[in-house]
Amino acid sequence: MSATARLKHFGWGREGEGLTAEEQAFVLSRAEARFGAALKESASAPRLDEIKLHAPRVTPPASLPFCTSEHYDRAAHTYGKSYPDLARGIARDYANAPDVVAYPRDEHEVAAVLDWAGSADATVTPFGGGSSVCGGVEPHRGTHKGAVTIDLRDMGKVKEVDKTSRAALIEGGTYGPSLEAQLRAHGLTLRHFPQSFEYSTLGGWIATRGGGHFATLYTHIDDFVESLRTVTPQGVMESRRLPGSGAGPSPDRMMIGSEGILGIITQAWMRLQDRPTFRAGGAVRFKDFFAAARAVRAVSQAGLYPSNCRILDPAEAFNTGAADGSVAIMVLAFESADHDVEPWMKRARECCADHGGTPEASGADAHLAGAAGAWRNAFIRMPYAMERLILRGVINDTFETAITWDRFEQFHDAIKSATERAIVDATGRKGQVTCRFTHVYPDGPAPYFTFHALGEQGKLGAQWLAIKSAALDAVIANGGTVTHHHAVGRDHRPWYDRQRPPLFAEALRAAKKALDPQGLLNPGVLIDP
Amino acid sequence: MSATARLKHFGWGREGEGLTAEEQAFVLSRAEARFGAALKESASAPRLDEIKLHAPRVTPPASLPFCTSEHYDRAAHTYGKSYPDLARGIARDYANAPDVVAYPRDEHEVAAVLDWAGSADATVTPFGGGSSVCGGVEPHRGTHKGAVTIDLRDMGKVKEVDKTSRAALIEGGTYGPSLEAQLRAHGLTLRHFPQSFEYSTLGGWIATRGGGHFATLYTHIDDFVESLRTVTPQGVMESRRLPGSGAGPSPDRMMIGSEGILGIITQAWMRLQDRPTFRAGGAVRFKDFFAAARAVRAVSQAGLYPSNCRILDPAEAFNTGAADGSVAIMVLAFESADHDVEPWMKRARECCADHGGTPEASGADAHLAGAAGAWRNAFIRMPYAMERLILRGVINDTFETAITWDRFEQFHDAIKSATERAIVDATGRKGQVTCRFTHVYPDGPAPYFTFHALGEQGKLGAQWLAIKSAALDAVIANGGTVTHHHAVGRDHRPWYDRQRPPLFAEALRAAKKALDPQGLLNPGVLIDP
Repeated sequence: MSATARLKHFGWGREGEGLTAEEQAFVLSRAEARFGAALKESASAPRLDEIKLHAPRVTPPASLPFCTSEHYDRAAHTYGKSYPDLARGIARDYANAPDVVAYPRDEHEVAAVLDWAGSADATVTPFGGGSSVCGGVEPHRGTHKGAVTIDLRDMGKVKEVDKTSRAALIEGGTYGPSLEAQLRAHGLTLRHFPQSFEYSTLGGWIATRGGGHFATLYTHIDDFVESLRTVTPQGVMESRRLPGSGAGPSPDRMMIGSEGILGIITQAWMRLQDRPTFRAGGAVRFKDFFAAARAVRAVSQAGLYPSNCRILDPAEAFNTGAADGSVAIMVLAFESADHDVEPWMKRARECCADHGGTPEASGADAHLAGAAGAWRNAFIRMPYAMERLILRGVINDTFETAITWDRFEQFHDAIKSATERAIVDATGRKGQVTCRFTHVYPDGPAPYFTFHALGEQGKLGAQWLAIKSAALDAVIANGGTVTHHHAVGRDHRPWYDRQRPPLFAEALRAAKKALDPQGLLNPGVLIDP
Repeated sequence: MSATARLKHFGWGREGEGLTAEEQAFVLSRAEARFGAALKESASAPRLDEIKLHAPRVTPPASLPFCTSEHYDRAAHTYGKSYPDLARGIARDYANAPDVVAYPRDEHEVAAVLDWAGSADATVTPFGGGSSVCGGVEPHRGTHKGAVTIDLRDMGKVKEVDKTSRAALIEGGTYGPSLEAQLRAHGLTLRHFPQSFEYSTLGGWIATRGGGHFATLYTHIDDFVESLRTVTPQGVMESRRLPGSGAGPSPDRMMIGSEGILGIITQAWMRLQDRPTFRAGGAVRFKDFFAAARAVRAVSQAGLYPSNCRILDPAEAFNTGAADGSVAIMVLAFESADHDVEPWMKRARECCADHGGTPEASGADAHLAGAAGAWRNAFIRMPYAMERLILRGVINDTFETAITWDRFEQFHDAIKSATERAIVDATGRKGQVTCRFTHVYPDGPAPYFTFHALGEQGKLGAQWLAIKSAALDAVIANGGTVTHHHAVGRDHRPWYDRQRPPLFAEALRAAKKALDPQGLLNPGVLIDP
């Protein structure tokens, strides 16, 4: 992997990256066992030269030399990384390619792009790292003349570090690894590790309310934001650096989660941490998922705040190689830069034992070993599998939600069975639905569902939509949220509309109109123009 | 104290309440020592029959029998509890009295008041418990015909309890003591204890982003809100009960801190806790305030999350009877319903020792004894002192802010000296400015300043304004927030306007227009119509 390789135009990560032969064999064997069939490739990934793009409908002036309409740039910025994105890529459908991709190098150039887009009647979509799994970066020009995508990859600097307050001013286009590398010199870390860490940016995390590595307390990026600077078509909006405030509704909380409809986040002061030196953790086995969930509830209501407190149901533990399919697994960990966390771990182990949990292993490196390590590796490599399996007709995707504890068990069963039924209805064949918790709160968990189905080449997009729709219908009908940390994007919009208070949509639409009177910023995301 | 006594029409609390003779003697002796002069009463609190009110300009229809224009109700709802409120009360200035006070008993009646106010062209101001110390509940009718105040005191029920998720559905008009009493039956507690706990309501806490008893982590009410139900002139807005979500900007975060300009918060699902059974705590002495602050920084950056971690500078410790004036005091405490907190306390004590702190006492009841106990009692009784001292020409008030650690020491000195200078300029005599921390964050503290000056009867309001203005000028110029947890109200508005991003004001104004097209809800608060 080279940090300077360009992003693939199709699939996850950078050019030259993907599953190893060994990983691919493991994923394929699990899938073939699941469907009881040999899975042969029945389609191919689109080569760059196979992709046909419409002629650009708008042309940037010479004064914006950081804009391009090159074939690679337009193709690589057409989609994010969701399943329907892959399905349309395989179908060589690039109808929504942007006309222009802009790579501004500073805030003035961001503002210049917005100004020019306004005069050219072009929509503007921020790309982040392009790892959206919900249709969040696909440009739709709507009633406008053209579509411009802004990619902040050249705005990736940590500009200032305040060691005393443990905070840093970081540009919006900073990718995860570069962000951590720049902070390491100062002995600091953000420790926000989404699955997409390598291929996503600070601005993207903030715009989508991304979820990170902490299973409790600092689950979303939201609480790490100390202040924000955003360029809107009406000018720059910047909040004060404050550790806390009660002065009116928070300006930052309007921008956090705005998914590109209000402005482009150019930089943020972020709250950081010292690098952890004390660790305790390991995997805990439970007889079933609900027993593990009760243990999670006990730990999360005890005020212990583990950094990891994830559980996998037996099928998911099997699929990721973390267990043999007969037990549910909890991945439990504490970390600190300040003190021995063994007293915390000891009490968490007691909570687990109260619910029948038996520890698998323990020790400083437990997070890298055993079931926890197997799961962790599978988790990070997972996205590469989707682009291989789709070529063999496999439909697999995930969706995450959240629900209060009182409703969790009924909710879980309702979502799981609705999704299982939808798989049979859509594909005529049984599939699999598994569940884990990615983040937990004192008042409820964030369940994360994965589904696997075997579809038919040419119909994969429609089959996926039927399954995902049934799943999200059930999520919304049973009181959950359409997304816990993947964002809304274009894929989740119909269900978001049923979840979000209608009057909030009115207020948000009015706020957008004040900041973006022409309605050029990511139109159709979150609200209609 | 009777829970059913009505609120005083002037001063803090309910009728029949106030300082004991002993408390009053203590407060007076400290004040006389401070100014080197005997302090005689030179004014009197307004008796109800001395207060003259304009004739009501709007009259509710007979269909709203829970509305009244009685003299007591109008007088008691003219002001909150800030110093200028008292000054104008003493001057018998009740020009801004509401025409009507509405006591709706359910959400339909709240909506009916909004409907009627719309047709009668009357502004609507929610009162909460009336304990605002920043001019947040004073009705200004602006260009409208009349002014209606809504008091939700008859909407004070805990309607539903979910023990599994530890959450409850609570009406907006529920006062602190009633809320805790209703939860106690279920073994649960909110544990949000602002200084105004007895005279403030859940809806008020949420509308003002009130700060509570937790010095770390759950500093504001914000994070306890699971979902909100708000009545706006355009209808009801309700968010889903979710432990966490990443679906667009948070609808709740728009309402939290909206100070009555967007709607009336009628009920909320709130996150609760088990009643703590394990405690550790005590006071720690430091040679000076900055040494104590460095210890606070160490504790707050260690990830220990004490429930209390407040510090008092030597003068403030002396004024509250917590110490002799030669040392700064830290009030440190941990609490848990789940586990022994001694390992946490032990590490926090080490952090204190690293910065020269010496523990005063320790033990389960330490929070009720010694310096910590003296401070705690003075803190709770403090508001009663203001209404006694103003009759003797004393100007005393507080303001709270927040700043990152890197700027704290310089910030503290700048604010303190600007306020001290302003006292001399305004009154011709030296006063006193003290500081404590009420809440702390890993990236900075929330300093809380108290000032004492001896003014002149008849000029107290103007002298207060000169001092407070100089103080807030310094806060804003040095990068702080105009309020950490007292809200903006009418008193802080000029400085809020300098702090808040101008484009956020545009967005908020547009959002308000969408929810309150006639501009009737608390006009002039946060934004101009």
